[in-house]
Amino acid sequence: MEDFKKIMEFVVLLDDMKTIMRKTKVITTQVQEDDAQHSYHICAMAVLLERYANGPIDLTKVLKMLLFHDVVELRAGDTFCYDLKANEGKFDREYAAAKELYGMLPNDLGDELFALWLEFEKGESTDAKFAIALDRGQPILNNYFGKGGSWKEHNVSYNQILKRIAPVKEGSESLYIFLISLVDQARNEGWVIP
Amino acid sequence: MEDFKKIMEFVVLLDDMKTIMRKTKVITTQVQEDDAQHSYHICAMAVLLERYANGPIDLTKVLKMLLFHDVVELRAGDTFCYDLKANEGKFDREYAAAKELYGMLPNDLGDELFALWLEFEKGESTDAKFAIALDRGQPILNNYFGKGGSWKEHNVSYNQILKRIAPVKEGSESLYIFLISLVDQARNEGWVIP
Repeated sequence: MEDFKKIMEFVVLLDDMKTIMRKTKVITTQVQEDDAQHSYHICAMAVLLERYANGPIDLTKVLKMLLFHDVVELRAGDTFCYDLKANEGKFDREYAAAKELYGMLPNDLGDELFALWLEFEKGESTDAKFAIALDRGQPILNNYFGKGGSWKEHNVSYNQILKRIAPVKEGSESLYIFLISLVDQARNEGWVIP
Repeated sequence: MEDFKKIMEFVVLLDDMKTIMRKTKVITTQVQEDDAQHSYHICAMAVLLERYANGPIDLTKVLKMLLFHDVVELRAGDTFCYDLKANEGKFDREYAAAKELYGMLPNDLGDELFALWLEFEKGESTDAKFAIALDRGQPILNNYFGKGGSWKEHNVSYNQILKRIAPVKEGSESLYIFLISLVDQARNEGWVIP
């Protein structure tokens, strides 16, 4: 019963994921999306694109990674990927947040989610590489189909984006090729700095 | 390649889930939540509460159900559960939407998701019962921890809520007992009509 209560407290805390704003915008409204919306979108992508992962993946594990990888932002906040200064010390901040937050859960469950978070951050397993490909790929879709979206707003350059999506190739070649074609078109449209 | 393009079109369409507003409100902001946020929350709950399902469940299947069960609202819109008139013909509207939307996908994937949607709607399998318990339980949490939330706004009664959450018992007794205690407290607080 004590375990159930711990879990329910965590469930209620997760509601705050709906209030942590990211730089990426929703396509049709051009309003910034939040962590819950982003996490939903990439989980759905995991199911839809499983067949395009570079290797066989454990879908349940990937979904767990994607559902909980951004939970650390409940404490550490969202860090804009193109802001180099803000990214200093990011891993240490998020590590402390992961320890605290997953520590709220019954031990076995907390340990499992902490290990999955670390596996995602390390990005070495086939599952983590696929999860990362989706996490990095989704903002490209939103920016492209939003005719520039947060790229335009934050003066993001073509080369910055290429560097950001390089890891997508490790998780899904098909998705990578598709995204590159979008970024090339975005450059042609003048939505990113050449 | 044709299949990949179909899937990516669906992925982009799913972004609109972030714009379909529900009656339930985010706890800390008291702003209405959207379908993407709701779906995220219940998917996370599925992982966290799996051990409290009434029977052994297939977590991957439950997550797929939860990720895609509200996609029909992209065409049929959100129907407020306590609005009897709005609920007339809901299944037929959503059935047509499911046929159209899952029909956009490669056959095997579309057929799988359509079958999962139907399984969820029928609510007969252990997996569907657990998924439904989460779908109906989450708004109770948000309304209770939001000190009445959309219950107060829409004059929802104690008996209406009890009827709404009765199916939770079929999916997770533990969750059902917990929710009943919250609804009782909500009545005592005057957040619902006795």
